[in-house]
Amino acid sequence: MEQIFYWTDLAGVAVFAISGTLLAFRKHMDGFGVIVLASVTAIGGGTLRDLILGLPVFWTTDPTYLYCILAVAVLTIIWLRFKAYIPITTLLVADAVGVAFFATMGAQKTLMAGFSPFIAVVMGTISACFGGMIRDVLARDIPMVLKGELYATTCVVGASAYVIVMQWNAVAALSVGMLATLLLRLTAIRYRWSLPVFQEHQDGSL
Amino acid sequence: MEQIFYWTDLAGVAVFAISGTLLAFRKHMDGFGVIVLASVTAIGGGTLRDLILGLPVFWTTDPTYLYCILAVAVLTIIWLRFKAYIPITTLLVADAVGVAFFATMGAQKTLMAGFSPFIAVVMGTISACFGGMIRDVLARDIPMVLKGELYATTCVVGASAYVIVMQWNAVAALSVGMLATLLLRLTAIRYRWSLPVFQEHQDGSL
Amino acid sequence: MEQIFYWTDLAGVAVFAISGTLLAFRKHMDGFGVIVLASVTAIGGGTLRDLILGLPVFWTTDPTYLYCILAVAVLTIIWLRFKAYIPITTLLVADAVGVAFFATMGAQKTLMAGFSPFIAVVMGTISACFGGMIRDVLARDIPMVLKGELYATTCVVGASAYVIVMQWNAVAALSVGMLATLLLRLTAIRYRWSLPVFQEHQDGSL
Repeated sequence: MEQIFYWTDLAGVAVFAISGTLLAFRKHMDGFGVIVLASVTAIGGGTLRDLILGLPVFWTTDPTYLYCILAVAVLTIIWLRFKAYIPITTLLVADAVGVAFFATMGAQKTLMAGFSPFIAVVMGTISACFGGMIRDVLARDIPMVLKGELYATTCVVGASAYVIVMQWNAVAALSVGMLATLLLRLTAIRYRWSLPVFQEHQDGSL
Repeated sequence: MEQIFYWTDLAGVAVFAISGTLLAFRKHMDGFGVIVLASVTAIGGGTLRDLILGLPVFWTTDPTYLYCILAVAVLTIIWLRFKAYIPITTLLVADAVGVAFFATMGAQKTLMAGFSPFIAVVMGTISACFGGMIRDVLARDIPMVLKGELYATTCVVGASAYVIVMQWNAVAALSVGMLATLLLRLTAIRYRWSLPVFQEHQDGSL
Repeated sequence: MEQIFYWTDLAGVAVFAISGTLLAFRKHMDGFGVIVLASVTAIGGGTLRDLILGLPVFWTTDPTYLYCILAVAVLTIIWLRFKAYIPITTLLVADAVGVAFFATMGAQKTLMAGFSPFIAVVMGTISACFGGMIRDVLARDIPMVLKGELYATTCVVGASAYVIVMQWNAVAALSVGMLATLLLRLTAIRYRWSLPVFQEHQDGSL
């Protein structure tokens, strides 16, 4: 059981590292900028989650996560060298998979630490959204999470699904949470679903 | 006494949530972007304060804060739907009230945790300024706190007033701290008071 | 020994405060904006390091750091008033010295707290890069650490040098770590050394 959680967590870190690398690449950053952006995306959300919950930050005691990010960033760069065209969807899909892993694992870790299901859903959402948010701020994009296409909403749905199914079966909950997040996010990207955008009635500038 | 602190804290969270919602609205964000920005503004400063002081993060043990943010964001959105014109001052005033609450409550919580009055003033300022700073960074505005009009200065004055009066009376200190911050900030906005802006003598770009 | 560490740490805070003040000055911020930016640059990296390692945040128990930042910011402002021309290199050099101090001291503090040498190198890099990264985000520049010229690389080299020499001699390790970081960073700035920048093959916008 512990093993499943561990590998799932590592897989989430890996896909987020890919998404960070892809954005750094698009922004013409150098080799180390790539690794910085990959790391921030991959461990940013989990670090904030552990800090807020008062747990030891997950990657300080197990360097595997950092080795994983390094390896993934290097492999992604090599892959990008040999690929002539990278559709923008690749970045969105990598990000969606990362979000699916982290929303569920964030909720799981919060529940294990003895917090309430409501806080678990909130922390799942924070784990999943925060890394990508810093990634976008550093690369000077408007954070995806604020741009819509049901970004944070999918995390809330996924983490809630996990928390609910968790009352019966831990492994099923993990799968349901991840699949729910991933499918909802991919569908939202595919069909450009989004919540209504609010428009102001005035034309003053802030 | 505890009750007064609790309600004051909750009121601070509520007005900051309003200011986050207003900015998200002006930036044409979708429904969840609005809630993310409202939450970050409302709990960002207090979260950083609790992390730095090594206290349990206030909203993880009491979900009332999060319910309050949700309710406030939804009510603000509904209100905005029915209002044809939102003057920019509304945002500034909501922000000023939030700053007044947080500068004082941040100093109060730090003193209670056994830190020195000087650190209490610093943490009051951080609590009050940090949430709004992230709000502005995420919405890609230049943070208000850096743009002047005595922003951080008012927090320092208010938190200092609280810490000084605190030696005689806790409730009086609370009122004095908040009123000092609020009045100074509103006056600064009204009369466009600001500290001298430093200008460089050269015309090189960074 | 403790004394040496303390003064070195304080010196790092001071030069980073200078670099924050210089950038705030270039961005035409007011007096308090200057102090905010100076503080964020000077204590941002160390604060994140202490939070992640679960140590008490260094400046909450010893206000000397904050007094030092205030004094340095005021002195820098006075100095700037009397100086007609500030070459951009001044900012880069102040930043380089700060990076040299923090990469080494961050690694040192992490080793002392009982973490592995690998984590010490990572935390040295975070301590050194994070303050400047927030400084640049707040001032709406692209973070230096992502722009290249071997920024993060120098921190990794310096922190690694410290961790290696540390096995024989603590004071020598301190000097070697700092000199390695400083010289490498200055040379990189001087000769515009940088890692290869990755370019995308497509012309799509994100």
